[in-house]
Amino acid sequence: MTEDTHEVAILESFSLELARAAGTTAKAYFRKNVTIRNKARDRFDPVTSADRAIESLLREAILERYPDHGIVGEEEGAHAARSRYTWIIDPIDGTRSFMTGSPLWGILVGLFRDGSPLLGVLCQPVLDEVFLGAPGGAWLIQDERRERLRTRQCDELAQATLACTHPNLFDSTEAEAFGALAKQCLMSRFGGDCYNYAMLAAGFTDLVVEGELKSYDIVPLIPLVEGAGGVVTDWQGRPPLDGGYVVAAATEELHARALEILNGAASAENQNR
Amino acid sequence: MTEDTHEVAILESFSLELARAAGTTAKAYFRKNVTIRNKARDRFDPVTSADRAIESLLREAILERYPDHGIVGEEEGAHAARSRYTWIIDPIDGTRSFMTGSPLWGILVGLFRDGSPLLGVLCQPVLDEVFLGAPGGAWLIQDERRERLRTRQCDELAQATLACTHPNLFDSTEAEAFGALAKQCLMSRFGGDCYNYAMLAAGFTDLVVEGELKSYDIVPLIPLVEGAGGVVTDWQGRPPLDGGYVVAAATEELHARALEILNGAASAENQNR
Repeated sequence: MTEDTHEVAILESFSLELARAAGTTAKAYFRKNVTIRNKARDRFDPVTSADRAIESLLREAILERYPDHGIVGEEEGAHAARSRYTWIIDPIDGTRSFMTGSPLWGILVGLFRDGSPLLGVLCQPVLDEVFLGAPGGAWLIQDERRERLRTRQCDELAQATLACTHPNLFDSTEAEAFGALAKQCLMSRFGGDCYNYAMLAAGFTDLVVEGELKSYDIVPLIPLVEGAGGVVTDWQGRPPLDGGYVVAAATEELHARALEILNGAASAENQNR
Repeated sequence: MTEDTHEVAILESFSLELARAAGTTAKAYFRKNVTIRNKARDRFDPVTSADRAIESLLREAILERYPDHGIVGEEEGAHAARSRYTWIIDPIDGTRSFMTGSPLWGILVGLFRDGSPLLGVLCQPVLDEVFLGAPGGAWLIQDERRERLRTRQCDELAQATLACTHPNLFDSTEAEAFGALAKQCLMSRFGGDCYNYAMLAAGFTDLVVEGELKSYDIVPLIPLVEGAGGVVTDWQGRPPLDGGYVVAAATEELHARALEILNGAASAENQNR
């Protein structure tokens, strides 16, 4: 084992510890008396007492173990790094699912090294599932059992299942592009939040197309999708490190076909204006 | 205990047995090697090997115990009743969820007596949950624990969470009506299939509005929604025994407000034609 492999293994093990601790807290709040507050003035952007409790727990644990690492979180902003590493946290990705009793939400913990995503964990404690993406691959971890994940070898849109959290992630131009893509696919499914990327990694969904993501919604999922053999970029084919419009695909071929439709439809719309 | 209460208790206990046996079979297929066949020529209407195995298991168990009872199922058609009772079965409600790895599907078993829904069970074995609706009320059953379910006391659309499986359940007139309703609600969520009705009964969702349901998609859920204090009808306010367009609501007030918007928007659309 090289020094680097050893360092990554320690960080991987710590990220699993973090996810499990956060999962226990999240499960204690789920379907219980949760306080909901609206973060926005002009629309409904909910945060729950569970989001806040989980982010605090994760921040404290990271600061105690790695005081030099940076932290970026949804609820409390950034803590600057004095090392190569920065953690990126979404305490509950899928707050609306969480609020409405659905188990399709997850705690996301990602780790940047020198500005690139190195590790990512999605924890879904109701289903007792932890999904891990790391340099060596992607896994589903349940209790002590580790199952290696690989995307489905789906190259054709006509065979592909497309997932997206909500159609209102798109304005009219993007909605038209998404609609054109959905028409070419075998079927489309809405809902799911981060869990869609886990099902892509596990080979049950072939495409995830979304809009208006924040960096903490997608960065922790990049190592999971890539570790399972998939591709994830923005709609222009660039690394989606800042969030925004995202396309994740089971294979390179499928990814290329999806980008072509998404951009083709968008340019046609621009010409018609 | 009256004779009737005793009879209902026996049927309730049998329906829970059925759901649990079916749940064990469903769980054995979930995320495993499932054969998928398209039932339709002109579109994608999937049936899996799991759907067929579960429906066979349920039919055999019912015929063995109650040979005089009728049976209506999704995959194998009707077996006529020679008694007051007819069972209605959806072996997997949410086949697309099942195929794509999501746990938001359920085995639905309902029972008509003299043409009215008497009992209904939704079994979700991955989450180890059985939801039961019966003359005495509605319950979530996990292992030996029974928790009574009640809908949330939500009378105002502005406070309501609206759920629907997929926007393509609606043609353009109904889509406009649904859109008008969604705009008045606190938030809308897509996905969920039968699980949305369970979350309505449990007080986490306030409205479920859908279209193009079959009778076996909704009849087993009527005792669950009504047993928890909710209301479920078609868009015209009638019992949704034949499926079609359905509105389920946490309270009578909310139900009335939703129907008003759905029908108001639909009539405005008709006038504009």
